Amino acid sequence: MAQDQRHSGRSTILAAIRKAGRIARVDLARQTDISPPTVTALTAELIAEGLVEETATDRPSAGRGRPRVDLAVRGAARRVAGLKLTNQAISMVILDFAGEELAEFSVPLEQAQASIADMVAEIARAVRAGADEAGCGVEGLAGLGLGISGIVDATRGFVYWSPSLQERNAPLGELLSQALSLPVFVDNDANLVAMAEKYFGLGRGVSDFIVATIENGVGMGIVLGDELYRGTRGCGAEFGHIKVELDGALCRCGQRGCLEAYVADYALLREAAVATDLSGSGDARSLDALFEAAKNGDAIAQSIFRRAGRIFAMGLANLVNIFDPQLIILSGERMQYDYLYADEVIESIRESIVQIDLPPPDIQIHKWGDQMWAKGAAAFAIEGVAKIALENLANNAA
Amino acid sequence: MAQDQRHSGRSTILAAIRKAGRIARVDLARQTDISPPTVTALTAELIAEGLVEETATDRPSAGRGRPRVDLAVRGAARRVAGLKLTNQAISMVILDFAGEELAEFSVPLEQAQASIADMVAEIARAVRAGADEAGCGVEGLAGLGLGISGIVDATRGFVYWSPSLQERNAPLGELLSQALSLPVFVDNDANLVAMAEKYFGLGRGVSDFIVATIENGVGMGIVLGDELYRGTRGCGAEFGHIKVELDGALCRCGQRGCLEAYVADYALLREAAVATDLSGSGDARSLDALFEAAKNGDAIAQSIFRRAGRIFAMGLANLVNIFDPQLIILSGERMQYDYLYADEVIESIRESIVQIDLPPPDIQIHKWGDQMWAKGAAAFAIEGVAKIALENLANNAA
Repeated sequence: MAQDQRHSGRSTILAAIRKAGRIARVDLARQTDISPPTVTALTAELIAEGLVEETATDRPSAGRGRPRVDLAVRGAARRVAGLKLTNQAISMVILDFAGEELAEFSVPLEQAQASIADMVAEIARAVRAGADEAGCGVEGLAGLGLGISGIVDATRGFVYWSPSLQERNAPLGELLSQALSLPVFVDNDANLVAMAEKYFGLGRGVSDFIVATIENGVGMGIVLGDELYRGTRGCGAEFGHIKVELDGALCRCGQRGCLEAYVADYALLREAAVATDLSGSGDARSLDALFEAAKNGDAIAQSIFRRAGRIFAMGLANLVNIFDPQLIILSGERMQYDYLYADEVIESIRESIVQIDLPPPDIQIHKWGDQMWAKGAAAFAIEGVAKIALENLANNAA
Repeated sequence: MAQDQRHSGRSTILAAIRKAGRIARVDLARQTDISPPTVTALTAELIAEGLVEETATDRPSAGRGRPRVDLAVRGAARRVAGLKLTNQAISMVILDFAGEELAEFSVPLEQAQASIADMVAEIARAVRAGADEAGCGVEGLAGLGLGISGIVDATRGFVYWSPSLQERNAPLGELLSQALSLPVFVDNDANLVAMAEKYFGLGRGVSDFIVATIENGVGMGIVLGDELYRGTRGCGAEFGHIKVELDGALCRCGQRGCLEAYVADYALLREAAVATDLSGSGDARSLDALFEAAKNGDAIAQSIFRRAGRIFAMGLANLVNIFDPQLIILSGERMQYDYLYADEVIESIRESIVQIDLPPPDIQIHKWGDQMWAKGAAAFAIEGVAKIALENLANNAA
């Protein structure tokens, strides 16, 4: 068989083992449509390279013959770090090659927005400190994944724009890679939530799903055919900036009618400032107070959340009408407030999608914190590091 | 090499030859990442099976050696029919396996909406008559592709709903297949316009693009990674029914605020009926008159088209913000009126998409008639028939 086909076979097999967790060779052959002898040959190479290991099966043996073994990704093969940058902190996890968490940290960020040079220095400092604390040091890491909000071309780690950076058009991946002497993989943070769902969350075993994230802004990650869909220029999946009203409310981006301008924190607090005394300092505590007031029956507060919920439902229904996914996952900090997934919101989505005699897509709520976003970044790094390992293997074999 | 890999290699190679038109084996190996010896072996099988043929190259020879030959899909290998069903007619083309047009016809439809049984009978009659006129007879066809408006699960030719059928949930592909003793492939008509663009139009060589069609309704076809994207339940890409206004204008589908309810014929005529004497009989001539009035400076007619254009721009900007495609193609009968792609509409799209320092996606207008939709249906049949041929080849080899 040609080397290029062996290479693509090894990629397919490693991905299938990762997806399954543990899997027997015979099942691997069936799932990947690769013949059993080829599976045996290629997995032998992955084992010799230390990327995969045999592990005793936990299923009963079929007879008295040889004890059956499963294959699993070898955790000790590589170690990666994953980071999420928010406007207050750098959250970080260190995972092994099998995705097991080895350590986690969070360090406060000096300033929410910094120059590229300062931000690179600050991230590099945090990674060094974290890796030292974990006992492996930066030289013990095989790669770094970073999630940042904004518009990112993940294929080259290039940040067109981010609220965290003073300048536009930053080759952030390249700069961090130089600073740390590590392969660095940068993506939009909502994409990395989708990655976390795919590897560790509700997206396991689901080939087509959408994640909508609501934090300070509104983001989206799209997984189609088990792969993140990123668009041609790396700036698709901008759910927060789809327009829901012609000449509508002003958005932070300067345009009008963006979904975010009705649903995000600042949109709710902007309304609260006009007709209540609850907007306070305009921060997360004000939102808590507004939510509390709505729960206690304040009609204006309820009206503010009700409209946000209806507009959010309209946006999600549009995604269903366009993508027809198996599953929609709602995630992010704001999921602590149920106005975005109250029964009437879900009902309103169902009423606004094209009606056929099949059940609508499943909608699930997943509340999780910054560490899970960091795990998504680490999963992205694992994918990148695996790709490098397989390319090295192919080059050595050729 | 395993049989299953040979099968997938043959599929990849046949698709690459089709995409290229003519291609040398060495370029085929480079493009598909399959080794030259394997390309030689697999193309020999495709040639022996009569699906591919050698053809003299039109490029200059590199030296004095053997004359170079290219490979091309062998037109005579198969013959397929493609149909588009509108509310007035059945348009039909017959193509050979290489996509060359052998014949075309159009027959008036007896009734715009019919029972499933009547529609199957009428389509079967049209196909028989067309195939006889083309001199091959139905038995000379290898497959039939059919485009129908409505919501279709193309994987099984199942029509959840169509304005052309009285009943819901029709296994139309199966019924037509029985009636004609032919493999039948049914899809939503807008998907088949995307297929026509991919094989014969502006989508050749473009891996990610979106087609928006405006006829009586508004449709969409999505091509991602060279494949039509159809969604989990077969009912994605419902561009006409994304919501552009909360509690907005009433749509034919019974919901409120659908894009179609602002942009389609009936939406424009509904407005015209209120404030002008131009709505007339409510048919296409009325729309001509309304368009004429706008061109002649009628302020109300202009206002009607201007709003439609602005809402259309908002919908397209939303698609860009979600998909970030390379290319958007605007197609369909309504493209004879320029209100949907006037300079201010294109400008309005550009202003409503996420702004990065890269040019926005290309937007192209493609005016074409029902025959091109039928060609898309035929291209879908060619894909299906090729798949059957390759499966037979794999089974015989095994």
